[in-house]
Amino acid sequence: MPNCIVAQSGGPSSVVNATLAGIIKANQLCPIYDHVYGGINGIEGILQERFVDLTKMSDHENLVLRQTPASALGSCRYKLKRNNVEDLEKVMSIMERYDAETLFYIGGNDSMDTVASLSEFANSKGIKNRRFVGCPKSIDNDLIVIDHAPGFGSAAKFIATTALQCWQDINVYPASRKEVFILETMGRDAGWLAASACLSNIVDLLIVPEVNFDREAVLDEIAKIVEAKSKCFVVISEGAHYADGTYIASAEARNDLFGTAVLGGAARALEQMILEEGVCGRCKIQELSTAQRSHASEQSLVDVNESYRIGMSAHMRSADPAFTGKLVGIRRRKDIKEYDVEYYTIDADRVANFVRNFPEKWLLEDYHGITDEAIQYMRPLIQGTPQLIMNDGLPEQTLPYYLCDIEIDKKP
Amino acid sequence: MPNCIVAQSGGPSSVVNATLAGIIKANQLCPIYDHVYGGINGIEGILQERFVDLTKMSDHENLVLRQTPASALGSCRYKLKRNNVEDLEKVMSIMERYDAETLFYIGGNDSMDTVASLSEFANSKGIKNRRFVGCPKSIDNDLIVIDHAPGFGSAAKFIATTALQCWQDINVYPASRKEVFILETMGRDAGWLAASACLSNIVDLLIVPEVNFDREAVLDEIAKIVEAKSKCFVVISEGAHYADGTYIASAEARNDLFGTAVLGGAARALEQMILEEGVCGRCKIQELSTAQRSHASEQSLVDVNESYRIGMSAHMRSADPAFTGKLVGIRRRKDIKEYDVEYYTIDADRVANFVRNFPEKWLLEDYHGITDEAIQYMRPLIQGTPQLIMNDGLPEQTLPYYLCDIEIDKKP
Repeated sequence: MPNCIVAQSGGPSSVVNATLAGIIKANQLCPIYDHVYGGINGIEGILQERFVDLTKMSDHENLVLRQTPASALGSCRYKLKRNNVEDLEKVMSIMERYDAETLFYIGGNDSMDTVASLSEFANSKGIKNRRFVGCPKSIDNDLIVIDHAPGFGSAAKFIATTALQCWQDINVYPASRKEVFILETMGRDAGWLAASACLSNIVDLLIVPEVNFDREAVLDEIAKIVEAKSKCFVVISEGAHYADGTYIASAEARNDLFGTAVLGGAARALEQMILEEGVCGRCKIQELSTAQRSHASEQSLVDVNESYRIGMSAHMRSADPAFTGKLVGIRRRKDIKEYDVEYYTIDADRVANFVRNFPEKWLLEDYHGITDEAIQYMRPLIQGTPQLIMNDGLPEQTLPYYLCDIEIDKKP
Repeated sequence: MPNCIVAQSGGPSSVVNATLAGIIKANQLCPIYDHVYGGINGIEGILQERFVDLTKMSDHENLVLRQTPASALGSCRYKLKRNNVEDLEKVMSIMERYDAETLFYIGGNDSMDTVASLSEFANSKGIKNRRFVGCPKSIDNDLIVIDHAPGFGSAAKFIATTALQCWQDINVYPASRKEVFILETMGRDAGWLAASACLSNIVDLLIVPEVNFDREAVLDEIAKIVEAKSKCFVVISEGAHYADGTYIASAEARNDLFGTAVLGGAARALEQMILEEGVCGRCKIQELSTAQRSHASEQSLVDVNESYRIGMSAHMRSADPAFTGKLVGIRRRKDIKEYDVEYYTIDADRVANFVRNFPEKWLLEDYHGITDEAIQYMRPLIQGTPQLIMNDGLPEQTLPYYLCDIEIDKKP
């Protein structure tokens, strides 16, 4: 039998390892490949022929991998461009040398573009028996076509749980202590994560990138709520911006090494406005930062199961030589009342390089949160709590493979 | 039978409601009081005769209360001073009118001082049949005499879990991407919370208030670690300070309405130093803020059980008319090898108004973390995971009683 390669790319999430675990387990249940090679640091490490052999992972390790956040194989932000013939050819030649018929690539928008590029290149060169398969993930839920993105449900659950519990905390002092609490979530272009806080049913104001930030209107609303009930709970996306597109946290905006804007600071910017304008004398901030995408100890069971099954489905479908340039998506079943999904295939280039925003029709006026329809869409995604495997009081974790010194020898 | 009053004070925690639940349940198992009245907003609400009747709480509500963070009865920072005869007399007269023989006060240092003050005042006035009983709590673990403070274990568990998972996240990118991650915990005077992150075994540097912050030495250590392994994980207490006592976050330090310094910003201050000095070009911050004391969805089972039992023990002991001016403490059993505790009584004035620091002998040199002895002390406190009662994907919560409009009529 030939081999396969699996790699991870893009920003980490709480369940991206579950997809990896699903691919490995599927190959144990129904071997299509002799070896499942894990590529280290996405396409970047594949180009350097950095591989670990995951074929015989024990069931215990597989379960632990499912509950380990981030990317056990490491990630990259390296974008394989369509005109980079040198890299494209190198991937083909490495796959040939490792007798790898399939490359599974777990990631977001950019990764689906990599899948499409590699598949197109192979087709254009008449290269047979090389398949490129995408497994989607995005905590931001900003992938189009699919019903929702693996990773979003767990992030949403953590955000809503934290909102609910922080709300308990700010309410303990007497009504005479007026206070604004600002919870900041990720979400540069899409407000899904901020909106998910509304599942807690305690959010007073929601500020997302889909609606321009009107300073006067927001401060007016906060003042009204503080006046009415002494405490005001605001949730804001890091990508909140004015009508002209300027981020409200713009003073802090800077580019990272990959040219992507590093945001954060929207809550602090809003706090500053509140204090400066005397809207309320007391303001507290909770920035969820890295925790919101790495808090796998409170995964949504629905989310982790779906992520795992996407990996299994991708593996099993890849027995078909024609299965390339595609990803496995999720769609909600419409034939039954309860929540359930179907796994199906989509051309990768239909998903790559688009962003799905939070629907404006689901946003209430005056920043007052989201509609019942939006809640009904999100609610099933946060259901269920996996049984954690603990190790001396903390969740047992897979040590990242690239730190384990277990890379296999390069093939001549 | 007479009645009792129970109230909560000081900063919220993940398990302070468990102590309340323990008192209520104990009175159902062995009724000593006709009514268990909950005083709203601590001594402040008691002085305003704001009470709810908790006597007949259902078992389901009791379980939900155990997993609800913060203070369901509300809190206050009102300090009942020993020379405030007017207030002291008012409490006595209110207790008489409500036929309340015992006042249980759940809180930290200041609350134990309130217990001592009330008890001394009653004694000095020859008032019989009024008992004042303390139930300790402090996420900071800064109470003296007792082995550890209820609330600390759950905060420690959340902090160590978050550290472990954030560490996975920052490690996903290739070694060429050098990065410092800074996790900021609470802890103005005591470093227990920051130190608890070391339970994750991934902390490179630990900066606590017990050791002066030496800018040059810290930056040197960070540079060395980044050089050696590309990523450096730093944990810092909000109360980190220079040798002269100035907080490193001093630019942001301000007093809250109660005169207590509001800190936060130590991580940002350190980030600024790292970037300014060119120690590393990339720095990420996670401020745990309110979440670390309110994340009851990941309580330590040991912690929540101990908190509950402190409430039960306090209730049952209060059948003794001589049981006043005391608190129920915890001490670790020395007669058996496995971890277990005994509940015992301590005079409240032995605990009030002192601070227990993290022992310097438990700190490694050059900010390199903590000793094995420290780990062995903390490890048992984070064990076990309670079974959460969920409600549509989120932990079911007790709605704070002061928001429920269920206060009883004032007694003439």
